[in-house]
Amino acid sequence: MIQTPYLLFLGDAPDQLAAKVAQGIKDWRPDNAIGQFRMEGCNADMGLADMSLAEARAAGAKTLVIGVANRGGVISQAWKKVLVAALEEGFDLASGLHNLLRDEPDLVAVAQACGRQLHDVRVPSVQYPIANGVKRSGKRCLAVGTDCSVGKMYTALCMDRDMKARGLKSSFRATGQTGILITGDGVPLDAVIADFMAGSIEWLTPDNDPDHWDMIEGQGSLFHVSYSGVTLALVHGGQPDALVVCHEPTRAHMRGLPGYTLPSLEDVRDVALRLAQVANPACQVIGFSINTQHMPEAEARAYLADVEARLGLPATDPFRFGADKLVDALVAL
Amino acid sequence: MIQTPYLLFLGDAPDQLAAKVAQGIKDWRPDNAIGQFRMEGCNADMGLADMSLAEARAAGAKTLVIGVANRGGVISQAWKKVLVAALEEGFDLASGLHNLLRDEPDLVAVAQACGRQLHDVRVPSVQYPIANGVKRSGKRCLAVGTDCSVGKMYTALCMDRDMKARGLKSSFRATGQTGILITGDGVPLDAVIADFMAGSIEWLTPDNDPDHWDMIEGQGSLFHVSYSGVTLALVHGGQPDALVVCHEPTRAHMRGLPGYTLPSLEDVRDVALRLAQVANPACQVIGFSINTQHMPEAEARAYLADVEARLGLPATDPFRFGADKLVDALVAL
Repeated sequence: MIQTPYLLFLGDAPDQLAAKVAQGIKDWRPDNAIGQFRMEGCNADMGLADMSLAEARAAGAKTLVIGVANRGGVISQAWKKVLVAALEEGFDLASGLHNLLRDEPDLVAVAQACGRQLHDVRVPSVQYPIANGVKRSGKRCLAVGTDCSVGKMYTALCMDRDMKARGLKSSFRATGQTGILITGDGVPLDAVIADFMAGSIEWLTPDNDPDHWDMIEGQGSLFHVSYSGVTLALVHGGQPDALVVCHEPTRAHMRGLPGYTLPSLEDVRDVALRLAQVANPACQVIGFSINTQHMPEAEARAYLADVEARLGLPATDPFRFGADKLVDALVAL
Repeated sequence: MIQTPYLLFLGDAPDQLAAKVAQGIKDWRPDNAIGQFRMEGCNADMGLADMSLAEARAAGAKTLVIGVANRGGVISQAWKKVLVAALEEGFDLASGLHNLLRDEPDLVAVAQACGRQLHDVRVPSVQYPIANGVKRSGKRCLAVGTDCSVGKMYTALCMDRDMKARGLKSSFRATGQTGILITGDGVPLDAVIADFMAGSIEWLTPDNDPDHWDMIEGQGSLFHVSYSGVTLALVHGGQPDALVVCHEPTRAHMRGLPGYTLPSLEDVRDVALRLAQVANPACQVIGFSINTQHMPEAEARAYLADVEARLGLPATDPFRFGADKLVDALVAL
């Protein structure tokens, strides 16, 4: 568990996109983002107060989160200077970078000397169990996709926010690095050992109140040959009561697989539901989440209307038009 | 790659069953098994020549394979004495034990001093790629199961033996620890990091002659919630042209999951085929392999006849009645 609130480290981000982890935290957990730390040459801005390390500590920040991708996979000396000073100032560090904080001897030494934690969310820190398939109390909703990177995390986050706004009990459950940094914990599923994948998701979504919903972040796609095994571990480990099928309509082929066309919404609905019902016979597909960011509004609305007419279930772009329809469908279950 | 042939270490095996890895090697790769090494109190016997380390070296043995499960998860001092002597005699060591050879400082030190290899097939030694889904030349057949431990490895081994006996090009591709020790290489899939599972199977079954068949050992089941993700990685990474559905008819529930009944043969046929056709639209289910070890012969034959009548495809117990029908179906593809 990463201590909150955070000071967001934007470093020397060349542009706003390079700081998309910080953007995600600011968009989805604004209460966790007390301020931003920018180095000379930083071209990203979260619209948060610029703070020195000392100011952020005084304001209550506990962890410096690296909210920016580093260039060339190396933690630069310029960054190091700030990271070391942050440890000395009393911050823990958290990072989703491929090159791990723990592999930097100087950071490890300073963290030890100062009694601070280094959180590398890229890799698991827990010894997960093998899944036992036992029915758990509480409810779970899983986002499944036609492809990778179609908006499964945003769908779960939008629905979670809506649920909370209605006073319903909901927890977003992160299964990827960005989601973990947004919420402070979760399972980095793509880095878990094969035998323990489903067990890690059981661990992530334990028994809960009968009216509590876990909104589980999806990964990959049952139709993406590189990562489908990860997706099926989510479908079986998550034991979902509800599935939301996520899709991005303008994509020409599966991400990273030029020879593979996307499956239809019907395909994903049928295959995901069949497999989900192995773990939970009561599971239902409750609607469709369409990522319309590359479509003008009229086209987007027409597409959603067509999906609803064709498939007989609610369809929305929850980030653009709100998640109400999907949450209504969950509540009606 | 583990150097062959082997001297099979039976240690102080309390009974024949404790030496089932050695039994598998002796049954399936008799040419690799030059002799056996038994300690005082050993109650297992492979019917091979008992050899001293020096005799086995003189006969050409290159690797001492631990063919027996150790008691209590500890490599005893009595075993160590033999293992150290074997390294000094010029043997490599190979083991599928949970406690790794490489975690024993004395074995590591002696192996280094003697320039010998320690092979722990429990864990991967290769940095596998992420799957790219590109169509490969050659043919592949994958055993899929209604459950874990229903005979998928034996099915692939039986078919591989039959193919070779007919002069056809075939390779058994091991994906589990016992299979790896039988053949000398393979992928310990259950220990691979999630993101690389499908890629490890692409790596295991590379481009080959157009008329060459990889007989891929299956793992888990698409319907076993603990391990289904591993299975789907095989279905997509293996890119199979043919599926054989494996089943054990007397099982009361899924292995290790008392609340879960087994899927029907029809269920596995349909779901596995639908998913396999994502990676290879030409894939077909070619038959059923039924593990009838717990059925009298008349009952077994009646069961097989019923499966054939009901599902319209060949069904056999390849270990008991031969794999001919399945190999005929492969050849006819």
